[in-house]
Amino acid sequence: MDIAILLFDRFTALDAVGPYEVLTRIPGATVTFAAKELGPVRTDTGRLAVTADAALADVAAADILLVPGGPGQDEAMRDQEVLDWVRAVDATSTWTTSVCTGSLILAAAGLLEGKRATSHWLALEQLRQFGAEPTSERVVFDGKVVTAAGVSAGIDMALTLVARIAGDEVAQAIQLGIEYDPQPPFDAGSPAKAPEMIVEFLRSQSRFLYERSTA
Amino acid sequence: MDIAILLFDRFTALDAVGPYEVLTRIPGATVTFAAKELGPVRTDTGRLAVTADAALADVAAADILLVPGGPGQDEAMRDQEVLDWVRAVDATSTWTTSVCTGSLILAAAGLLEGKRATSHWLALEQLRQFGAEPTSERVVFDGKVVTAAGVSAGIDMALTLVARIAGDEVAQAIQLGIEYDPQPPFDAGSPAKAPEMIVEFLRSQSRFLYERSTA
Repeated sequence: MDIAILLFDRFTALDAVGPYEVLTRIPGATVTFAAKELGPVRTDTGRLAVTADAALADVAAADILLVPGGPGQDEAMRDQEVLDWVRAVDATSTWTTSVCTGSLILAAAGLLEGKRATSHWLALEQLRQFGAEPTSERVVFDGKVVTAAGVSAGIDMALTLVARIAGDEVAQAIQLGIEYDPQPPFDAGSPAKAPEMIVEFLRSQSRFLYERSTA
Repeated sequence: MDIAILLFDRFTALDAVGPYEVLTRIPGATVTFAAKELGPVRTDTGRLAVTADAALADVAAADILLVPGGPGQDEAMRDQEVLDWVRAVDATSTWTTSVCTGSLILAAAGLLEGKRATSHWLALEQLRQFGAEPTSERVVFDGKVVTAAGVSAGIDMALTLVARIAGDEVAQAIQLGIEYDPQPPFDAGSPAKAPEMIVEFLRSQSRFLYERSTA
């Protein structure tokens, strides 16, 4: 099973690495990180780089396509080479997936029209302008398209997907292998649960970041 | 606030990237990935490389030291350059932290003697041979030393640490920023919760991996 993960400048590391850590443990899986050019691709903080081992042109197909998000999604959405590649791989993929604002890249490629999809909570409504139906759930399946909410949601998405692909026992073995027994110190991980002040703070901080692509 | 994350061959990506994604969002934080040599460092799967932007010799101190785990921990535990560096940075750190079998590296450096500590559940008992007290909790604080259980536990550890360093509101804002509202599809993330058959399967698969350093 071939899994291709798109990298682009200023992606968010955990969007890609969370699901990678799960999907790479599917027996027989081979993960390839791909970007426009070979070599290190910097994340949104500039303090971390992940190596693209393949150029987009070298990856013609994949059983699972995974598109992460991050502030750089805005540029990726306008990059015809990236969009063409996403469309081409999706054409024969078994599963086309995204994490966080990666769903906006799928949307910009025209792959979410008429589909239920999610994204980072701050970017969710943007899906509508591409004909998708914003769905405030952590993991959304619509046919072969699977979208996850913000950043850390990719881990839950990947485990859910593994269960569909390889069965519950394989998914549980992977969950136990990565000791995914989450115990966050607060119950503040969604806008419905976090203190209102903190929700508003993030909204104000992120307005520039997440509303640029609406402009 | 300077945060140094150790990289070594065959580390587990999420051990490092989970806490990175949290700690990098502390206002004023600067994360540096460091390894024996500059350049790409391959993870345990061989399919992902993270760039070391600094050589160990270039990082003399850090407010937070983070040591990930992974199969390569076995070699790292025997590497005097790595152990000397870990000891040197620990000497002036505010917090010395690990994820997964990273705690065995701290232990091999002599930093866990007489301390409560945790590790990946399959490796927990190995801590005892270095004078540490194996503690089956997800995040363990003992003075300035903070250890996390396997792989995904680094996210919980980092959020807990942020709350101590910068306050509950900053930690909650980061949690909401990465939308960490975990909803794993199964409740199989610890050996106490997973089906016994799956626990035994992982034990048998991992015996070689996790028991080499006891040999």
